[in-house]
Amino acid sequence: MSKLFAPGSIAVIGASQNPEKVGHAIVKNLLECGYPGKIYPINPREEQILGLRCYKTVSELVSSEKKEDPTGVDLAIIAIPASRVLEAVKECAGNKINLVIVISAGFKETGPEGLELEKKLTTFCHEHKIRLLGPNCVGLLHTHTPVNASFARGFPQKGHISFISQSGAMLVSIIDWSKAAGLGFSHFVSLGNKADLNETDFLEYAGWDPATRVILCYLEDIVDGPKFLEKAGRISTHKPIIVLKAGSSPAGARAATSHTGALAGSDSAYNAAFKQSAVLRVENMEELFDMAFAFANQPLPEGDKIAIITNSGGPGILTTDRLEKAGLHMARFTAETSRQLRTFLPPEASIYNPVDVLGDAGAERYRFALEKVLSDPQVDGVIALLCPTATTDAREVAHSIMEIRKEIPEKPLLSVFMGGKEIQEGQNILREARIPCYTFPERAVAAMEGMVRYRRNSAALHEKIELLKKIDKKAQEESEPYSPFYNTAQVKAIFYDALRERRVVLLGHEGIKVLSAFKIPVAPSKLAKDAEEAARIAEEVGFPVVLKIASPKILHKSDIGGVVAGLENGWEVKRHFEEIMHRVQRFVPDAPFYGIEVQKMMPTGMEIIVGSSYDIQFGHLLVFGLGGIYVNLFQDFSLRLAQNLEEPDIDEMIKETKAYRLLRGFRGSNPLDIQSLKDTLLKTARLVTTFPEIREIDINPLLVYEKGVCAVDVKITLSHNLVADVHPVWEREEQLIEQFAERRS
Amino acid sequence: MSKLFAPGSIAVIGASQNPEKVGHAIVKNLLECGYPGKIYPINPREEQILGLRCYKTVSELVSSEKKEDPTGVDLAIIAIPASRVLEAVKECAGNKINLVIVISAGFKETGPEGLELEKKLTTFCHEHKIRLLGPNCVGLLHTHTPVNASFARGFPQKGHISFISQSGAMLVSIIDWSKAAGLGFSHFVSLGNKADLNETDFLEYAGWDPATRVILCYLEDIVDGPKFLEKAGRISTHKPIIVLKAGSSPAGARAATSHTGALAGSDSAYNAAFKQSAVLRVENMEELFDMAFAFANQPLPEGDKIAIITNSGGPGILTTDRLEKAGLHMARFTAETSRQLRTFLPPEASIYNPVDVLGDAGAERYRFALEKVLSDPQVDGVIALLCPTATTDAREVAHSIMEIRKEIPEKPLLSVFMGGKEIQEGQNILREARIPCYTFPERAVAAMEGMVRYRRNSAALHEKIELLKKIDKKAQEESEPYSPFYNTAQVKAIFYDALRERRVVLLGHEGIKVLSAFKIPVAPSKLAKDAEEAARIAEEVGFPVVLKIASPKILHKSDIGGVVAGLENGWEVKRHFEEIMHRVQRFVPDAPFYGIEVQKMMPTGMEIIVGSSYDIQFGHLLVFGLGGIYVNLFQDFSLRLAQNLEEPDIDEMIKETKAYRLLRGFRGSNPLDIQSLKDTLLKTARLVTTFPEIREIDINPLLVYEKGVCAVDVKITLSHNLVADVHPVWEREEQLIEQFAERRS
Repeated sequence: MSKLFAPGSIAVIGASQNPEKVGHAIVKNLLECGYPGKIYPINPREEQILGLRCYKTVSELVSSEKKEDPTGVDLAIIAIPASRVLEAVKECAGNKINLVIVISAGFKETGPEGLELEKKLTTFCHEHKIRLLGPNCVGLLHTHTPVNASFARGFPQKGHISFISQSGAMLVSIIDWSKAAGLGFSHFVSLGNKADLNETDFLEYAGWDPATRVILCYLEDIVDGPKFLEKAGRISTHKPIIVLKAGSSPAGARAATSHTGALAGSDSAYNAAFKQSAVLRVENMEELFDMAFAFANQPLPEGDKIAIITNSGGPGILTTDRLEKAGLHMARFTAETSRQLRTFLPPEASIYNPVDVLGDAGAERYRFALEKVLSDPQVDGVIALLCPTATTDAREVAHSIMEIRKEIPEKPLLSVFMGGKEIQEGQNILREARIPCYTFPERAVAAMEGMVRYRRNSAALHEKIELLKKIDKKAQEESEPYSPFYNTAQVKAIFYDALRERRVVLLGHEGIKVLSAFKIPVAPSKLAKDAEEAARIAEEVGFPVVLKIASPKILHKSDIGGVVAGLENGWEVKRHFEEIMHRVQRFVPDAPFYGIEVQKMMPTGMEIIVGSSYDIQFGHLLVFGLGGIYVNLFQDFSLRLAQNLEEPDIDEMIKETKAYRLLRGFRGSNPLDIQSLKDTLLKTARLVTTFPEIREIDINPLLVYEKGVCAVDVKITLSHNLVADVHPVWEREEQLIEQFAERRS
Repeated sequence: MSKLFAPGSIAVIGASQNPEKVGHAIVKNLLECGYPGKIYPINPREEQILGLRCYKTVSELVSSEKKEDPTGVDLAIIAIPASRVLEAVKECAGNKINLVIVISAGFKETGPEGLELEKKLTTFCHEHKIRLLGPNCVGLLHTHTPVNASFARGFPQKGHISFISQSGAMLVSIIDWSKAAGLGFSHFVSLGNKADLNETDFLEYAGWDPATRVILCYLEDIVDGPKFLEKAGRISTHKPIIVLKAGSSPAGARAATSHTGALAGSDSAYNAAFKQSAVLRVENMEELFDMAFAFANQPLPEGDKIAIITNSGGPGILTTDRLEKAGLHMARFTAETSRQLRTFLPPEASIYNPVDVLGDAGAERYRFALEKVLSDPQVDGVIALLCPTATTDAREVAHSIMEIRKEIPEKPLLSVFMGGKEIQEGQNILREARIPCYTFPERAVAAMEGMVRYRRNSAALHEKIELLKKIDKKAQEESEPYSPFYNTAQVKAIFYDALRERRVVLLGHEGIKVLSAFKIPVAPSKLAKDAEEAARIAEEVGFPVVLKIASPKILHKSDIGGVVAGLENGWEVKRHFEEIMHRVQRFVPDAPFYGIEVQKMMPTGMEIIVGSSYDIQFGHLLVFGLGGIYVNLFQDFSLRLAQNLEEPDIDEMIKETKAYRLLRGFRGSNPLDIQSLKDTLLKTARLVTTFPEIREIDINPLLVYEKGVCAVDVKITLSHNLVADVHPVWEREEQLIEQFAERRS
């Protein structure tokens, strides 16, 4: 992979003399960027291109160069019509070139024919172990090699930001924009159609690349969610990944689909995935680059206590507002810092945060204030603001900021110089010195917030990884951690029964049984075939009970009078059993009859919803939220991917919701049993990861008491497709289950 | 006031030869901006300044100029030490100069002495009918006069944006920045300490000023809330006002207070105030100017259906995302538009919204797509995006956008050219043609959202004003609209009783009586002195009843067993009356005893909170929200200023909350009586505006039924201060009330 960014030699298939052609631009870019390796233009109709000898074919090139360079050609860039690309790739394979970039468009993005062409290309590459970038891409470049294997106009400044983009046009725009903005990059990749190499491959490279300090991604979809997360999680413990994910609104997702033909995962799954792998998600392009500049050049803040130094009140207040809105905190200085500021600054200056050095402040006053504030142990980061005034020399202030930065390099220092011509030179000085300088306060605050958030999330991720290591060890010791604990055979038997009858929605008592098998406390529920059995079960589970008609065809049980609650004795149970039967036969005579469920009624508790649904991109999501009507009304819930979920995640998940405030005892009420709730969430996560054939599970309500919890209603939906695809174990165990089911009935 | 921005002649008191002095910069600015009037430098120690004759004193100037210019001097700008400013103003007064700008600092902002100095200055000005801007300000300028009566470096481009700023430094920064950004202004004002002229005065001027099309304000506080709102409301029906209000976070508000010594109103009051006067509040500086450029140069959109035209997919998707997040909608084209796009654009182009004209699109393709989309009746506004590609000529595309703008000028058209050098010329062409051109999509979306929001709010405000006119007419006809309907005498009597006993918190049954006087349905409640009376009242109001101890000293009644609910007959009432008495005497023997309230218990209904609290800046705020624990947990409430509140406002207020979804029938439950709820809100608003001495009122819960509502608990707190200050009527009516109260007892 590193050869892709530092190839010893490059063949450009489709190189051209015509300056309007992409094949011309690529050769020109390679020459102009100062690429140190060999460039071989390939074109049967040319002798020479831009002063380089042109070869008729790759074979001709390889055979004629063999004597000089026995290692062969490292990389081929292909820029010829789509119909001839496969042929060219075959020629590469024949000549031992196993890295290709296909610039050419005319594949998946154009419709079914293009898709067919692309599939053939991908298959060939897989079979011949050729790694391919594209097709339909702009190419890639690396400023440290240097290599510009793209047809983008211009070459960015050398720096430490990597940018992986699913949009080629955006990449070109950003190269152009970055030069004026003073942003430096390590490398750029245009992903194109991602027929082979995708975001995860390049993420991995950027994570390794020593020239890269921060990784930016513009993505419209992710090819392999779980793999992306795994790699991202490993990298983001030491290198920040910032993602601008398009298609976050329903209409945006539609646009994304029409653009790349990609199947976008639901946006909340992306949010959960990014959070769990400490990937910073940003909302727009400005934020992406505001953060990039700060991350690439500044140390991370230890905490969220920020100080502001300003030469005018208004911008100081605005910055304070933004900081607090972003969830950061204004640092409170030690008494010593304030005392020192007092001795040097004029009496009208504000010596508290925000420090106002006043409009007539020169470089000396900035220097002094910065030094004191940066040295304060209660300050985690500093934003220095400057407005041009009659006496301010922005250049000198910029110089003093630079010097202080060198003296005290441990904390992040961002600057905001507000204005145009008057502060331009000052801004340039700071940007050259790699101190981020913004024009408006909100931009600096966005960057600082990103740094604080990343620091926090990556620390949490680090802890999580340590925890998982310990658990892995334990698992190895005990060989099979869950099966002795959870009754998986019972679950399989229930699923088998349902699927054999082609039912994908389990009946209520079946769901209850599945939960019991995973040791989740439930309100006991059994199926009665007749009134006598119902009364017997009621005695067994304990009064009062509720009766519910059980039939896969009757979804709205209450509407036909299929539910009767609050029955206090056997006689009532028998009478209502008959009455329900009567109503069902009258209203829905065709519905298959399974019996009537008899369930113990539980005392009221706080209603919580716990559930999970399968996301096509990332697998199962776990949901936790306030139950009853409020989950819908207030959207008070949190989400996580169920895979690898451990207690710290669940802890965070509960604390994210407002329901948490109710759980821990709101306005004088007693705290509820959060530990049992956590157990239930964890067990639900284990249930769906053990049984990927569960498409949806919905425990609503789960009652939470001062002591204990109880699942009352549960709806489990299975996926026919998943049974075969995801759970091969299933096939092998079918016979076993058959026996189990028989023994049980 | 218009003289301030177009004075015939200006005296500069404190003019100086020294280029480092403010008094020099002002004279220089006046000369350099091309000010057409006369400039008179005043300085006892100079003969000439910058080639102008210098006068020793204002008196010398006026007497020597009298022959030539009998109209006298229009404006004096004062830039001398604070201690000598009053004297200078006195001299101005003596020479009939009644407009002064005090640039000098050293007043309120420096502490108590400065405040004293400022007060003297203000008093003198008031007494001598002198209007004063400042002190401690940068001055003002108008680009159309032109006049630059400030010491700011540079002069902005001529344009149609007015900027009123409470921060001088920010103003200077913006002048500097705006030149590079290509933004033109009509005038700038630096408010300084607002000793006399304040934001409302300048708002009024900007509303009138024909050169101004959009008004920007940076404010840290508002001097006279109600007056600001009244003026703002009138202006914003025809001219947009965009406000960046600092101090919106608690820490920001602290910073604001230390900066100007201003007493900031609570942020939610500001939000309500701005909403009710159709003032657009923005969150940061970039938004302020993004919107300003669009408002100053583009027509308003008729609706919120926006179309996007792009030459690359990624940015199109990002823009779609942002539009939907901003609450706007993607336009759906008519079949005819799509058909026409199909005929002209290449087959791979997307002919639905966002329209993708593809990377190789030239000016012609943009021109065609823009024309078709702008003409579509289902499109309210268009954003045109461009990324530089190999074949794009940004200049030509810019020209075609310009031409289409001229041909179809009715709908807003914003553009986004993403890049640096490659698109610079295109951006310049558009900006010169007054078509907003942004570098990132999110900025264009912010501007479009502002236009849609303003359009909607100002239309609603317009309707409201028409409604108020009708009500005013009706009021004139009926002479006194509310007193015959509401029993104000009863309210006054209750307040009088409480205040006579120096109680500011009313007892429960008193609150209930106040509500009844304003025809708000209540759960009947009466005070019983003894057990017999309690039983009698219970018979009267109807069983079941609740008993509550009534004593101003006992706030937490339940804690001492002072509340007993669910009493079903006279015997129970009598027994529990005695028991409560017993407990009270045992636990709080010193508490003054008023009796025990007997209140009818109401059937359960949906719990709503209705209340009002007095905001020092804007007067009474009306609050509506979900009751019970949820108002605190979910912060689900809405706010409005109670003054001039009418049914449309209340309608909007209810609809803003999630409680509304419960009220209109959530998930199958029956809709509740929203009309009675509205009545109650309106009556509560009338109650607090009729009686400004109510500091707080809290009806919690108000039960809402399928038919009717009922106030169960109400807490009313009066303000001692307000009685005398705000309600002079009180004093006059005191005797009357005395009589009334006597008659009543």
